[in-house]
Amino acid sequence: MFEAKLPQAATLKKVVDAIKDLVQDAPFDCSETGMSLQAMDSSHVALVSLKMDVSLFDTYRCDRTINVGLSLATMAKALKCANNDDSCHIRHDDDDHDNVTFTFKDAKKERTQEVTVRLVDLDNEHLGIPEQEYSVVLQMPSSDFMKTCKDLSMFSDTLCIAANKSSIEFSATGDNGSSKVTYNKSSSLDDDEENGGGIVLEVKTPVKINFSIKYMNQFTKATPLGEVVKISMCNGVPVIVEYPFGSDDRSSLSFFLAPKIDDDVKMEA
Amino acid sequence: MFEAKLPQAATLKKVVDAIKDLVQDAPFDCSETGMSLQAMDSSHVALVSLKMDVSLFDTYRCDRTINVGLSLATMAKALKCANNDDSCHIRHDDDDHDNVTFTFKDAKKERTQEVTVRLVDLDNEHLGIPEQEYSVVLQMPSSDFMKTCKDLSMFSDTLCIAANKSSIEFSATGDNGSSKVTYNKSSSLDDDEENGGGIVLEVKTPVKINFSIKYMNQFTKATPLGEVVKISMCNGVPVIVEYPFGSDDRSSLSFFLAPKIDDDVKMEA
Amino acid sequence: MFEAKLPQAATLKKVVDAIKDLVQDAPFDCSETGMSLQAMDSSHVALVSLKMDVSLFDTYRCDRTINVGLSLATMAKALKCANNDDSCHIRHDDDDHDNVTFTFKDAKKERTQEVTVRLVDLDNEHLGIPEQEYSVVLQMPSSDFMKTCKDLSMFSDTLCIAANKSSIEFSATGDNGSSKVTYNKSSSLDDDEENGGGIVLEVKTPVKINFSIKYMNQFTKATPLGEVVKISMCNGVPVIVEYPFGSDDRSSLSFFLAPKIDDDVKMEA
Repeated sequence: MFEAKLPQAATLKKVVDAIKDLVQDAPFDCSETGMSLQAMDSSHVALVSLKMDVSLFDTYRCDRTINVGLSLATMAKALKCANNDDSCHIRHDDDDHDNVTFTFKDAKKERTQEVTVRLVDLDNEHLGIPEQEYSVVLQMPSSDFMKTCKDLSMFSDTLCIAANKSSIEFSATGDNGSSKVTYNKSSSLDDDEENGGGIVLEVKTPVKINFSIKYMNQFTKATPLGEVVKISMCNGVPVIVEYPFGSDDRSSLSFFLAPKIDDDVKMEA
Repeated sequence: MFEAKLPQAATLKKVVDAIKDLVQDAPFDCSETGMSLQAMDSSHVALVSLKMDVSLFDTYRCDRTINVGLSLATMAKALKCANNDDSCHIRHDDDDHDNVTFTFKDAKKERTQEVTVRLVDLDNEHLGIPEQEYSVVLQMPSSDFMKTCKDLSMFSDTLCIAANKSSIEFSATGDNGSSKVTYNKSSSLDDDEENGGGIVLEVKTPVKINFSIKYMNQFTKATPLGEVVKISMCNGVPVIVEYPFGSDDRSSLSFFLAPKIDDDVKMEA
Repeated sequence: MFEAKLPQAATLKKVVDAIKDLVQDAPFDCSETGMSLQAMDSSHVALVSLKMDVSLFDTYRCDRTINVGLSLATMAKALKCANNDDSCHIRHDDDDHDNVTFTFKDAKKERTQEVTVRLVDLDNEHLGIPEQEYSVVLQMPSSDFMKTCKDLSMFSDTLCIAANKSSIEFSATGDNGSSKVTYNKSSSLDDDEENGGGIVLEVKTPVKINFSIKYMNQFTKATPLGEVVKISMCNGVPVIVEYPFGSDDRSSLSFFLAPKIDDDVKMEA
């Protein structure tokens, strides 16, 4: 049997809201160390990788490793029923293969809401994500990253990220106008230890990469999960957009996205 | 002539907003004891019954009993013009049969807004509502009832309410999932006198009844009228969903809805 | 070269949001005394006239009078990128004819956002607005004017404004109802000097004029620009609806609208 209790249903709600427009049905892996999930988006362009460490949970019991296929739309419905401060108890019984039960409780009101969600059959092929050294690692406030992607998407479908030792630049160029947002490393980073609102930029070698801004906007739906987003880049390989969450940052929601091939190059091909 | 003044236009606004999607044109009865209204919804499934006691009004004058047919859509427009704290003066002159005038005043600003609404011709057949003993009477915070109906409507069209001496259970079962909300009588009801936020459940004999959740969601549009909803049930007869309002609770907006016949039974019929 | 810096991007944002649904492409005149703009709305019924006095700007440099044609939709996109407290630097280089650059800076965060907007070719014929004596000049809170127009538009397409020495009346009459809002000069105007929230009404001769309420609703999109709207009227000539802004009220956004010819008269014609 699998049984786990989150102190706040809001955590799972934010996770599901962040990915339910990218992934339809998701195979959750439940093991001794926590719950995890890997899935390609429905057009097979982006990869979602979720780790919910056992430390997130108040109680956690997993007798044997299981894989639970859930429709994220149905999960989102279930989680809409929870108030943000409700606790969320997740339960899968061995003798009731077909269902997972979410129970929300609000201590004050003697109110219990139980939602039973029918499992879906999923092929669960694990995707190998190769280890990679990254040339640029940027940490910035997740809300700033969200606003930047949203602003630039007014001008183009393509987001260009260019970083050098002293600054990072996000830009988009369209027919009627273009926009460029620059964050300077210098002044706000006299110390390595920066306050929560700041930017941490580590650059081994400069990069300049184009991405589909539509996918970036999708990823920023994870913004409510955590205050910081960590973006790891290297020319020619997929970017990782990672949202750490939980008090010890051992849990995270990460998105992988391959660079956009230059349109001119494409046309010649 | 009929003339009445509500201290706050907001009261009438909330009444009209609660019923305007159920009933198109409404025959208001104005008598010595107050204004009232009875009407079937347009598909003749639910009955709306409104009592606005004379105690709600600052001034009230009704020379003879009259019936005034008003389009609720036009009334809603009129009341949109009022600020919530405006007073609302309602007037129907005997020598201007065709119109009712609503006048909104905001003492501070020397601003007067007058809206004249043309009457509509309505057949006004009074519906006899038989006196009825109810097996279960539940009082609960109206906002909790609204949330419960809204949550459950994600899973099914049918709301099942089941009550026994110790608890009441709202549930809905669909193809991909089901949900059940339970309120326990026990702990929060050690005394008969409960604080405003609580639940009061009186059960003579247990009930288990199905209702159309669509109508229940319609009724919960009355939630802004009052903090408490009172639900009276008996197997096989229409439920009453009643929102008392006004400082002395002598005014109320009630909805009557017949139980849903079990689908299997229906098919055999 | 033209270069100007607004302390708050919000000012320009409010101007553009107020007129972008009336006017598609706008010819901005930049001269020593400030920026200005005159344009007919796309159906050639209303005239927009904007004055942004040099006193609005922190720094202002205009070497020679130039005319800059800008798509207001693209400007609105650019200004959406700015946070309200960002400063807004506007720049047009003589050797880069085709573009204007807006730069938004938020001092605290070391963040710079630059938006380059491509100019559009526009015929810039200056419209002569004849000097005119007005019979009635009304100043009122811009939010009250907005609410009045919105309320009345529920009843009719035509707004009737009637003013005499003691009061001003806005009314609209439709098939199912009518509404009339009256502001009395008397009590709130014992002194000529009125507090900011009040109404100042100067009447030389009474007026009674009909206007298209659709256009009035468009004009009230300028409400966020300033707390007061000034309405100047005279029978038979266009009304001016003026929103002064900036600390010294030397800047303003004005709308001119011709009266509506009486429908009956029209039919006879």
